[in-house]
Amino acid sequence: MQDKRCFVYQEDMLSKSQLSFIKSLHQKKYRKESGLFIVEGIKSIVEFLDSPYKIHSLYSLPQYQSLLPALSANIKLFEVNNAELDKISTLQTPQGILALVHNSESTKLAEKALKGNFTLVLDGVQDPGNLGTIIRTADWFGFKHIVCSLNTVEVYNPKTVQATMGSLARVKVFYEDLEVWLKDKKLPVFGALLEGKNMYDTEWGTEGLVILGNEGQGISENVQTFITDPVTIPRVGAAESLNVAISAAIICADISRNLYK
Amino acid sequence: MQDKRCFVYQEDMLSKSQLSFIKSLHQKKYRKESGLFIVEGIKSIVEFLDSPYKIHSLYSLPQYQSLLPALSANIKLFEVNNAELDKISTLQTPQGILALVHNSESTKLAEKALKGNFTLVLDGVQDPGNLGTIIRTADWFGFKHIVCSLNTVEVYNPKTVQATMGSLARVKVFYEDLEVWLKDKKLPVFGALLEGKNMYDTEWGTEGLVILGNEGQGISENVQTFITDPVTIPRVGAAESLNVAISAAIICADISRNLYK
Repeated sequence: MQDKRCFVYQEDMLSKSQLSFIKSLHQKKYRKESGLFIVEGIKSIVEFLDSPYKIHSLYSLPQYQSLLPALSANIKLFEVNNAELDKISTLQTPQGILALVHNSESTKLAEKALKGNFTLVLDGVQDPGNLGTIIRTADWFGFKHIVCSLNTVEVYNPKTVQATMGSLARVKVFYEDLEVWLKDKKLPVFGALLEGKNMYDTEWGTEGLVILGNEGQGISENVQTFITDPVTIPRVGAAESLNVAISAAIICADISRNLYK
Repeated sequence: MQDKRCFVYQEDMLSKSQLSFIKSLHQKKYRKESGLFIVEGIKSIVEFLDSPYKIHSLYSLPQYQSLLPALSANIKLFEVNNAELDKISTLQTPQGILALVHNSESTKLAEKALKGNFTLVLDGVQDPGNLGTIIRTADWFGFKHIVCSLNTVEVYNPKTVQATMGSLARVKVFYEDLEVWLKDKKLPVFGALLEGKNMYDTEWGTEGLVILGNEGQGISENVQTFITDPVTIPRVGAAESLNVAISAAIICADISRNLYK
Protein backbone atom coordinates (compact mmCIF):
# COMPACT_ATOMS: atom_id res chain seq x y z
CA MET A 1 0.00 0.00 0.00
CA GLN A 2 1.47 3.31 -1.01
CA ASP A 3 1.81 6.03 1.60
CA LYS A 4 0.15 9.10 0.11
CA ARG A 5 2.74 11.29 1.77
CA CYS A 6 5.82 9.30 0.74
CA PHE A 7 7.04 12.17 -1.42
CA VAL A 8 8.31 13.98 1.66
CA TYR A 9 11.06 11.43 1.88
CA GLN A 10 12.72 12.83 -1.19
CA GLU A 11 15.88 14.73 -0.47
CA ASP A 12 16.88 18.37 -0.46
CA MET A 13 14.61 20.28 -2.78
CA LEU A 14 10.88 20.75 -2.59
CA SER A 15 9.09 19.36 -5.62
CA LYS A 16 6.14 21.15 -7.14
CA SER A 17 3.83 18.52 -5.71
CA GLN A 18 5.27 19.00 -2.22
CA LEU A 19 4.80 22.76 -2.45
CA SER A 20 1.23 22.37 -3.57
CA PHE A 21 0.53 19.70 -0.95
CA ILE A 22 1.73 21.97 1.86
CA LYS A 23 -0.18 24.91 0.40
CA SER A 24 -3.32 22.77 0.29
CA LEU A 25 -3.06 22.50 4.10
CA HIS A 26 -3.94 26.19 4.32
CA GLN A 27 -7.47 24.92 3.68
CA LYS A 28 -9.57 23.02 6.20
CA LYS A 29 -10.71 20.43 3.66
CA TYR A 30 -7.19 19.20 2.99
CA ARG A 31 -6.17 19.35 6.64
CA LYS A 32 -9.05 17.02 7.38
CA GLU A 33 -8.24 14.72 4.47
CA SER A 34 -4.55 14.39 5.35
CA GLY A 35 -4.78 14.60 9.12
CA LEU A 36 -1.99 17.18 9.08
CA PHE A 37 -1.79 20.83 10.10
CA ILE A 38 0.81 23.60 9.94
CA VAL A 39 2.81 25.05 12.84
CA GLU A 40 5.20 27.96 12.23
CA GLY A 41 8.02 29.55 14.21
CA ILE A 42 10.86 27.92 16.11
CA LYS A 43 9.37 28.45 19.59
CA SER A 44 6.05 26.82 18.76
CA ILE A 45 7.70 23.98 16.84
CA VAL A 46 10.01 23.19 19.76
CA GLU A 47 6.95 22.98 22.02
CA PHE A 48 5.25 20.57 19.61
CA LEU A 49 8.43 18.46 19.37
CA ASP A 50 8.31 18.20 23.16
CA SER A 51 4.64 17.08 23.22
CA PRO A 52 2.57 13.99 22.46
CA TYR A 53 1.91 15.36 18.93
CA LYS A 54 3.75 13.57 16.14
CA ILE A 55 5.74 15.80 13.81
CA HIS A 56 5.50 14.77 10.16
CA SER A 57 8.14 17.00 8.58
CA LEU A 58 10.04 20.25 8.98
CA TYR A 59 10.84 22.97 6.41
CA SER A 60 13.55 25.28 7.59
CA LEU A 61 15.83 28.05 6.41
CA PRO A 62 19.46 26.98 6.98
CA GLN A 63 19.99 29.30 9.97
CA TYR A 64 17.06 27.85 11.96
CA GLN A 65 18.20 24.24 11.89
CA SER A 66 20.74 24.68 14.67
CA LEU A 67 17.93 25.85 16.98
CA LEU A 68 16.19 22.47 16.75
CA PRO A 69 16.75 19.73 19.33
CA ALA A 70 17.87 16.26 18.15
CA LEU A 71 15.15 14.88 15.90
CA SER A 72 13.91 11.29 15.90
CA ALA A 73 14.68 9.44 12.68
CA ASN A 74 11.11 9.45 11.40
CA ILE A 75 10.94 13.26 11.17
CA LYS A 76 12.18 14.46 7.81
CA LEU A 77 13.89 17.84 7.77
CA PHE A 78 13.94 19.84 4.53
CA GLU A 79 16.10 22.84 3.97
CA VAL A 80 14.16 25.54 2.10
CA ASN A 81 15.01 28.96 0.78
CA ASN A 82 13.04 32.16 1.38
CA ALA A 83 11.10 31.86 -1.87
CA GLU A 84 9.96 28.34 -1.01
CA LEU A 85 9.04 29.33 2.53
CA ASP A 86 7.02 32.28 1.25
CA LYS A 87 5.02 29.85 -0.85
CA ILE A 88 4.18 27.37 1.89
CA SER A 89 3.81 29.78 4.82
CA THR A 90 0.40 30.93 6.06
CA LEU A 91 1.95 34.12 7.44
CA GLN A 92 2.56 37.50 5.83
CA THR A 93 5.98 37.45 7.47
CA PRO A 94 7.15 33.81 7.58
CA GLN A 95 9.12 32.88 10.68
CA GLY A 96 11.95 30.88 9.19
CA ILE A 97 10.65 27.38 9.93
CA LEU A 98 7.43 25.48 9.32
CA ALA A 99 6.28 22.07 10.52
CA LEU A 100 3.59 19.67 9.40
CA VAL A 101 2.09 18.03 12.46
CA HIS A 102 -0.29 15.07 12.72
CA ASN A 103 -3.51 16.10 14.38
CA SER A 104 -4.38 14.30 17.59
CA GLU A 105 -6.70 11.31 17.48
CA SER A 106 -10.30 12.31 18.11
CA THR A 107 -10.54 10.70 21.52
CA LYS A 108 -13.16 11.48 24.12
CA LEU A 109 -12.43 13.53 27.21
CA ALA A 110 -12.61 11.13 30.18
CA GLU A 111 -15.30 12.08 32.69
CA LYS A 112 -12.87 11.74 35.56
CA ALA A 113 -10.65 14.41 33.97
CA LEU A 114 -13.41 16.91 34.76
CA LYS A 115 -13.33 16.18 38.49
CA GLY A 116 -11.31 18.57 40.62
CA ASN A 117 -10.65 20.76 37.57
CA PHE A 118 -12.12 23.66 35.67
CA THR A 119 -12.82 23.03 32.01
CA LEU A 120 -13.66 25.68 29.42
CA VAL A 121 -16.62 24.97 27.12
CA LEU A 122 -16.92 27.06 23.95
CA ASP A 123 -20.30 27.35 22.25
CA GLY A 124 -19.84 28.56 18.69
CA VAL A 125 -16.69 30.69 18.92
CA GLN A 126 -16.08 31.72 15.28
CA ASP A 127 -12.90 33.75 15.18
CA PRO A 128 -9.76 31.60 14.87
CA GLY A 129 -7.67 34.21 16.71
CA ASN A 130 -10.10 34.19 19.62
CA LEU A 131 -9.94 30.39 19.91
CA GLY A 132 -6.15 30.48 19.79
CA THR A 133 -5.93 33.21 22.41
CA ILE A 134 -8.31 31.27 24.68
CA ILE A 135 -6.09 28.18 24.38
CA ARG A 136 -2.99 30.24 25.26
CA THR A 137 -4.74 31.80 28.25
CA ALA A 138 -6.08 28.43 29.43
CA ASP A 139 -2.52 27.09 29.31
CA TRP A 140 -1.25 30.01 31.41
CA PHE A 141 -3.83 29.32 34.11
CA GLY A 142 -3.36 25.55 34.03
CA PHE A 143 -6.71 24.64 32.44
CA LYS A 144 -5.87 21.43 30.61
CA HIS A 145 -9.00 20.78 28.54
CA ILE A 146 -11.33 22.77 26.32
CA VAL A 147 -14.57 21.34 24.94
CA CYS A 148 -15.93 23.03 21.80
CA SER A 149 -19.34 22.82 20.19
CA LEU A 150 -19.35 21.28 16.72
CA ASN A 151 -19.88 24.72 15.16
CA THR A 152 -16.83 26.24 16.88
CA VAL A 153 -14.00 27.19 14.51
CA GLU A 154 -11.51 24.41 13.71
CA VAL A 155 -8.59 24.30 16.14
CA TYR A 156 -6.08 23.50 13.35
CA ASN A 157 -6.88 26.70 11.46
CA PRO A 158 -3.42 28.32 10.98
CA LYS A 159 -4.59 31.55 12.68
CA THR A 160 -5.73 29.57 15.70
CA VAL A 161 -2.51 27.57 15.90
CA GLN A 162 -0.48 30.78 15.58
CA ALA A 163 -2.44 32.59 18.30
CA THR A 164 -1.88 29.72 20.77
CA MET A 165 1.88 30.50 20.66
CA GLY A 166 2.67 26.82 21.24
CA SER A 167 0.07 26.24 23.96
CA LEU A 168 -1.88 23.94 21.65
CA ALA A 169 0.93 21.45 22.28
CA ARG A 170 -0.31 21.21 25.89
CA VAL A 171 -4.02 22.06 26.09
CA LYS A 172 -6.32 19.32 24.75
CA VAL A 173 -9.25 20.48 22.64
CA PHE A 174 -12.32 18.30 22.05
CA TYR A 175 -15.34 18.79 19.80
CA GLU A 176 -18.73 17.60 21.08
CA ASP A 177 -22.43 18.08 20.50
CA LEU A 178 -22.80 20.18 23.65
CA GLU A 179 -26.50 19.44 24.11
CA VAL A 180 -25.60 15.77 24.46
CA TRP A 181 -22.26 16.18 26.17
CA LEU A 182 -23.49 18.53 28.90
CA LYS A 183 -26.10 16.04 30.17
CA ASP A 184 -25.61 14.52 33.62
CA LYS A 185 -22.33 16.24 34.33
CA LYS A 186 -22.90 16.57 38.10
CA LEU A 187 -20.63 19.60 38.22
CA PRO A 188 -21.34 23.31 38.60
CA VAL A 189 -21.89 24.72 35.11
CA PHE A 190 -20.87 28.39 35.01
CA GLY A 191 -21.91 30.41 31.99
CA ALA A 192 -20.70 33.87 30.97
CA LEU A 193 -23.86 35.89 30.40
CA LEU A 194 -24.59 39.61 30.27
CA GLU A 195 -27.17 39.16 33.01
CA GLY A 196 -25.89 36.75 35.60
CA LYS A 197 -24.52 36.94 39.09
CA ASN A 198 -21.77 39.49 39.66
CA MET A 199 -18.49 37.63 39.08
CA TYR A 200 -16.91 39.22 42.14
CA ASP A 201 -19.58 37.56 44.29
CA THR A 202 -19.41 34.20 42.53
CA GLU A 203 -18.25 31.24 44.57
CA TRP A 204 -16.21 29.27 42.11
CA GLY A 205 -15.37 26.36 44.37
CA THR A 206 -12.78 23.89 43.11
CA GLU A 207 -14.28 22.36 39.97
CA GLY A 208 -16.72 23.05 37.20
CA LEU A 209 -17.41 23.83 33.58
CA VAL A 210 -17.22 27.40 32.28
CA ILE A 211 -19.26 28.07 29.13
CA LEU A 212 -18.46 30.97 26.80
CA GLY A 213 -20.52 31.77 23.74
CA ASN A 214 -20.35 33.02 20.19
CA GLU A 215 -18.90 36.49 19.48
CA GLY A 216 -22.21 37.98 18.35
CA GLN A 217 -24.91 35.74 19.79
CA GLY A 218 -23.43 34.56 23.08
CA ILE A 219 -24.38 31.14 24.43
CA SER A 220 -27.17 29.44 22.45
CA GLU A 221 -30.54 29.06 24.15
CA ASN A 222 -30.39 25.27 24.32
CA VAL A 223 -26.95 25.28 25.87
CA GLN A 224 -28.01 27.99 28.36
CA THR A 225 -30.46 25.50 29.91
CA PHE A 226 -27.49 23.56 31.33
CA ILE A 227 -26.08 26.57 33.19
CA THR A 228 -26.37 26.25 36.97
CA ASP A 229 -24.43 29.45 37.77
CA PRO A 230 -24.79 32.38 35.36
CA VAL A 231 -21.85 34.76 35.80
CA THR A 232 -21.49 38.38 34.68
CA ILE A 233 -18.31 40.40 34.57
CA PRO A 234 -19.50 43.68 36.11
CA ARG A 235 -19.54 46.61 33.73
CA VAL A 236 -18.48 50.01 35.01
CA GLY A 237 -18.31 51.90 31.71
CA ALA A 238 -20.31 51.89 28.52
CA ALA A 239 -19.03 49.16 26.16
CA GLU A 240 -21.87 46.90 25.09
CA SER A 241 -19.92 43.69 25.49
CA LEU A 242 -16.46 42.20 25.90
CA ASN A 243 -14.50 40.16 23.37
CA VAL A 244 -15.00 36.44 24.14
CA ALA A 245 -11.28 35.75 24.64
CA ILE A 246 -11.16 38.69 27.06
CA SER A 247 -14.16 37.35 29.00
CA ALA A 248 -12.58 33.89 29.15
CA ALA A 249 -9.33 35.36 30.48
CA ILE A 250 -11.00 37.47 33.15
CA ILE A 251 -12.96 34.45 34.37
CA CYS A 252 -9.89 32.15 34.32
CA ALA A 253 -7.98 34.75 36.36
CA ASP A 254 -10.82 35.07 38.87
CA ILE A 255 -11.06 31.28 39.30
CA SER A 256 -7.29 31.14 39.68
CA ARG A 257 -7.38 33.94 42.26
CA ASN A 258 -9.96 32.02 44.26
CA LEU A 259 -7.87 28.84 44.24
CA TYR A 260 -4.80 30.84 45.28
CA LYS A 261 -6.40 32.26 48.41
CA MET B 1 -9.86 78.83 -0.86
CA GLN B 2 -11.03 75.52 -2.20
CA ASP B 3 -11.92 72.77 0.27
CA LYS B 4 -9.92 69.75 -0.80
CA ARG B 5 -12.81 67.50 0.18
CA CYS B 6 -15.57 69.46 -1.51
CA PHE B 7 -16.22 66.62 -3.95
CA VAL B 8 -18.15 64.77 -1.27
CA TYR B 9 -20.89 67.33 -1.63
CA GLN B 10 -21.78 65.99 -5.04
CA GLU B 11 -25.05 64.11 -5.11
CA ASP B 12 -26.04 60.48 -5.45
CA MET B 13 -23.26 58.60 -7.18
CA LEU B 14 -19.70 58.11 -6.08
CA SER B 15 -17.23 59.53 -8.56
CA LYS B 16 -13.99 57.78 -9.34
CA SER B 17 -12.10 60.38 -7.34
CA GLN B 18 -14.35 59.84 -4.32
CA LEU B 19 -13.83 56.08 -4.49
CA SER B 20 -10.10 56.49 -4.70
CA PHE B 21 -10.07 59.11 -1.93
CA ILE B 22 -11.90 56.79 0.46
CA LYS B 23 -9.69 53.87 -0.55
CA SER B 24 -6.63 56.01 0.16
CA LEU B 25 -7.80 56.22 3.79
CA HIS B 26 -6.99 52.51 4.16
CA GLN B 27 -3.42 53.81 4.41
CA LYS B 28 -1.99 55.65 7.40
CA LYS B 29 -0.28 58.27 5.25
CA TYR B 30 -3.54 59.53 3.76
CA ARG B 31 -5.40 59.32 7.06
CA LYS B 32 -2.80 61.62 8.52
CA GLU B 33 -2.89 63.98 5.55
CA SER B 34 -6.69 64.30 5.51
CA GLY B 35 -7.39 64.03 9.22
CA LEU B 36 -10.08 61.44 8.45
CA PHE B 37 -10.51 57.78 9.33
CA ILE B 38 -12.98 55.02 8.49
CA VAL B 39 -15.61 53.53 10.79
CA GLU B 40 -17.77 50.64 9.57
CA GLY B 41 -20.98 49.00 10.77
CA ILE B 42 -24.20 50.61 11.95
CA LYS B 43 -23.60 50.00 15.67
CA SER B 44 -20.19 51.64 15.71
CA ILE B 45 -21.33 54.52 13.51
CA VAL B 46 -24.29 55.26 15.78
CA GLU B 47 -21.87 55.43 18.72
CA PHE B 48 -19.64 57.89 16.85
CA LEU B 49 -22.68 60.01 15.87
CA ASP B 50 -23.48 60.19 19.58
CA SER B 51 -19.95 61.30 20.54
CA PRO B 52 -17.75 64.41 20.38
CA TYR B 53 -16.26 63.10 17.10
CA LYS B 54 -17.39 64.93 13.96
CA ILE B 55 -18.72 62.76 11.17
CA HIS B 56 -17.60 63.85 7.71
CA SER B 57 -19.79 61.66 5.50
CA LEU B 58 -21.71 58.38 5.37
CA TYR B 59 -21.85 55.73 2.63
CA SER B 60 -24.75 53.40 3.07
CA LEU B 61 -26.67 50.64 1.32
CA PRO B 62 -30.33 51.72 1.02
CA GLN B 63 -31.57 49.34 3.73
CA TYR B 64 -29.22 50.75 6.41
CA GLN B 65 -30.32 54.37 6.13
CA SER B 66 -33.46 53.86 8.21
CA LEU B 67 -31.28 52.66 11.10
CA LEU B 68 -29.57 56.04 11.35
CA PRO B 69 -30.72 58.76 13.75
CA ALA B 70 -31.54 62.22 12.40
CA LEU B 71 -28.36 63.65 10.90
CA SER B 72 -27.20 67.23 11.27
CA ALA B 73 -27.15 69.14 7.99
CA ASN B 74 -23.38 69.16 7.63
CA ILE B 75 -23.14 65.36 7.39
CA LYS B 76 -23.52 64.22 3.80
CA LEU B 77 -25.15 60.84 3.29
CA PHE B 78 -24.39 58.90 0.10
CA GLU B 79 -26.35 55.91 -1.02
CA VAL B 80 -24.01 53.25 -2.40
CA ASN B 81 -24.49 49.84 -3.95
CA ASN B 82 -22.72 46.62 -2.94
CA ALA B 83 -20.06 46.99 -5.61
CA GLU B 84 -19.17 50.50 -4.45
CA LEU B 85 -19.14 49.44 -0.81
CA ASP B 86 -16.86 46.50 -1.61
CA LYS B 87 -14.41 48.96 -3.12
CA ILE B 88 -14.28 51.40 -0.21
CA SER B 89 -14.62 48.94 2.69
CA THR B 90 -11.61 47.76 4.69
CA LEU B 91 -13.45 44.54 5.61
CA GLN B 92 -13.63 41.19 3.83
CA THR B 93 -17.35 41.23 4.59
CA PRO B 94 -18.52 44.86 4.48
CA GLN B 95 -21.19 45.74 7.03
CA GLY B 96 -23.56 47.79 4.89
CA ILE B 97 -22.50 51.25 6.01
CA LEU B 98 -19.23 53.16 6.24
CA ALA B 99 -18.42 56.55 7.75
CA LEU B 100 -15.55 58.96 7.36
CA VAL B 101 -14.84 60.54 10.72
CA HIS B 102 -12.62 63.50 11.61
CA ASN B 103 -9.88 62.45 13.99
CA SER B 104 -9.83 64.19 17.34
CA GLU B 105 -7.56 67.17 17.84
CA SER B 106 -4.23 66.15 19.29
CA THR B 107 -4.84 67.68 22.70
CA LYS B 108 -2.91 66.87 25.83
CA LEU B 109 -4.36 64.77 28.64
CA ALA B 110 -4.90 67.12 31.59
CA GLU B 111 -2.90 66.13 34.67
CA LYS B 112 -5.97 66.41 36.88
CA ALA B 113 -7.73 63.77 34.74
CA LEU B 114 -5.23 61.26 36.15
CA LYS B 115 -6.22 61.93 39.77
CA GLY B 116 -8.69 59.50 41.28
CA ASN B 117 -8.59 57.36 38.12
CA PHE B 118 -6.69 54.50 36.60
CA THR B 119 -5.12 55.19 33.22
CA LEU B 120 -3.68 52.59 30.87
CA VAL B 121 -0.25 53.33 29.38
CA LEU B 122 0.82 51.30 26.34
CA ASP B 123 4.51 51.02 25.50
CA GLY B 124 4.93 49.85 21.92
CA VAL B 125 1.82 47.74 21.34
CA GLN B 126 2.12 46.77 17.66
CA ASP B 127 -0.93 44.75 16.74
CA PRO B 128 -3.92 46.92 15.73
CA GLY B 129 -6.38 44.28 16.95
CA ASN B 130 -4.72 44.24 20.37
CA LEU B 131 -4.97 48.03 20.67
CA GLY B 132 -8.62 47.96 19.63
CA THR B 133 -9.45 45.18 22.08
CA ILE B 134 -7.69 47.08 24.88
CA ILE B 135 -9.79 50.18 24.11
CA ARG B 136 -12.99 48.12 24.16
CA THR B 137 -12.02 46.50 27.47
CA ALA B 138 -11.01 49.85 29.00
CA ASP B 139 -14.44 51.20 28.04
CA TRP B 140 -16.18 48.23 29.72
CA PHE B 141 -14.32 48.88 32.97
CA GLY B 142 -14.78 52.64 32.85
CA PHE B 143 -11.15 53.59 32.14
CA LYS B 144 -11.53 56.84 30.20
CA HIS B 145 -8.00 57.49 28.97
CA ILE B 146 -5.18 55.56 27.35
CA VAL B 147 -1.72 57.00 26.82
CA CYS B 148 0.38 55.36 24.08
CA SER B 149 4.07 55.59 23.36
CA LEU B 150 4.93 57.18 20.02
CA ASN B 151 5.82 53.76 18.57
CA THR B 152 2.46 52.23 19.47
CA VAL B 153 0.28 51.32 16.47
CA GLU B 154 -1.95 54.12 15.13
CA VAL B 155 -5.36 54.19 16.79
CA TYR B 156 -7.13 55.04 13.49
CA ASN B 157 -5.88 51.87 11.79
CA PRO B 158 -9.10 50.27 10.45
CA LYS B 159 -8.39 47.01 12.33
CA THR B 160 -8.03 48.95 15.58
CA VAL B 161 -11.21 50.94 15.02
CA GLN B 162 -13.08 47.73 14.16
CA ALA B 163 -11.84 45.88 17.24
CA THR B 164 -12.98 48.70 19.55
CA MET B 165 -16.60 47.94 18.52
CA GLY B 166 -17.51 51.60 18.95
CA SER B 167 -15.66 52.12 22.22
CA LEU B 168 -13.21 54.47 20.49
CA ALA B 169 -16.11 56.95 20.48
CA ARG B 170 -15.78 57.14 24.28
CA VAL B 171 -12.22 56.27 25.35
CA LYS B 172 -9.67 59.00 24.66
CA VAL B 173 -6.32 57.91 23.31
CA PHE B 174 -3.20 60.08 23.53
CA TYR B 175 0.29 59.63 22.07
CA GLU B 176 3.24 60.78 24.14
CA ASP B 177 6.98 60.30 24.49
CA LEU B 178 6.58 58.16 27.60
CA GLU B 179 10.05 58.89 28.94
CA VAL B 180 9.09 62.55 29.13
CA TRP B 181 5.43 62.12 29.96
CA LEU B 182 5.98 59.72 32.87
CA LYS B 183 8.19 62.19 34.78
CA ASP B 184 6.87 63.66 38.05
CA LYS B 185 3.53 61.91 37.90
CA LYS B 186 3.16 61.51 41.69
CA LEU B 187 0.94 58.51 41.21
CA PRO B 188 1.55 54.79 41.68
CA VAL B 189 2.92 53.43 38.41
CA PHE B 190 1.97 49.77 38.01
CA GLY B 191 3.72 47.78 35.29
CA ALA B 192 2.80 44.35 33.95
CA LEU B 193 6.01 42.33 34.12
CA LEU B 194 6.76 38.61 34.11
CA GLU B 195 8.60 39.00 37.41
CA GLY B 196 6.71 41.37 39.66
CA LYS B 197 4.54 41.12 42.72
CA ASN B 198 1.74 38.58 42.56
CA MET B 199 -1.30 40.46 41.23
CA TYR B 200 -3.57 38.81 43.77
CA ASP B 201 -1.50 40.43 46.55
CA THR B 202 -1.25 43.82 44.85
CA GLU B 203 -2.86 46.76 46.59
CA TRP B 204 -4.27 48.78 43.75
CA GLY B 205 -5.65 51.63 45.76
CA THR B 206 -7.85 54.13 43.97
CA GLU B 207 -5.64 55.71 41.33
CA GLY B 208 -2.61 55.07 39.21
CA LEU B 209 -1.05 54.36 35.85
CA VAL B 210 -0.91 50.82 34.49
CA ILE B 211 1.83 50.19 31.91
CA LEU B 212 1.62 47.33 29.42
CA GLY B 213 4.37 46.57 26.93
CA ASN B 214 5.08 45.39 23.43
CA GLU B 215 3.86 41.93 22.34
CA GLY B 216 7.33 40.44 22.01
CA GLN B 217 9.60 42.65 24.11
CA GLY B 218 7.35 43.78 26.96
CA ILE B 219 7.95 47.19 28.55
CA SER B 220 11.12 48.90 27.33
CA GLU B 221 13.98 49.25 29.80
CA ASN B 222 13.79 53.03 30.00
CA VAL B 223 10.06 53.01 30.67
CA GLN B 224 10.51 50.27 33.28
CA THR B 225 12.49 52.71 35.42
CA PHE B 226 9.27 54.64 36.12
CA ILE B 227 7.44 51.60 37.53
CA THR B 228 6.82 51.85 41.28
CA ASP B 229 4.75 48.65 41.53
CA PRO B 230 5.70 45.76 39.22
CA VAL B 231 2.76 43.38 38.91
CA THR B 232 2.67 39.79 37.66
CA ILE B 233 -0.37 37.76 36.75
CA PRO B 234 0.42 34.47 38.49
CA ARG B 235 1.03 31.57 36.13
CA VAL B 236 -0.29 28.15 37.07
CA GLY B 237 0.33 26.32 33.80
CA ALA B 238 3.06 26.37 31.19
CA ALA B 239 2.39 29.14 28.63
CA GLU B 240 5.40 31.40 28.32
CA SER B 241 3.40 34.62 28.30
CA LEU B 242 -0.06 36.12 27.87
CA ASN B 243 -1.34 38.21 24.98
CA VAL B 244 -1.06 41.91 25.91
CA ALA B 245 -4.79 42.60 25.50
CA ILE B 246 -5.49 39.62 27.76
CA SER B 247 -3.05 40.93 30.40
CA ALA B 248 -4.64 44.38 30.21
CA ALA B 249 -8.11 42.90 30.70
CA ILE B 250 -7.13 40.73 33.66
CA ILE B 251 -5.52 43.73 35.35
CA CYS B 252 -8.49 46.04 34.61
CA ALA B 253 -10.84 43.41 36.08
CA ASP B 254 -8.69 43.05 39.18
CA ILE B 255 -8.57 46.81 39.73
CA SER B 256 -12.32 46.96 39.20
CA ARG B 257 -12.84 44.12 41.68
CA ASN B 258 -10.83 46.00 44.27
CA LEU B 259 -12.87 49.19 43.78
CA TYR B 260 -16.10 47.18 44.02
CA LYS B 261 -15.28 45.69 47.44
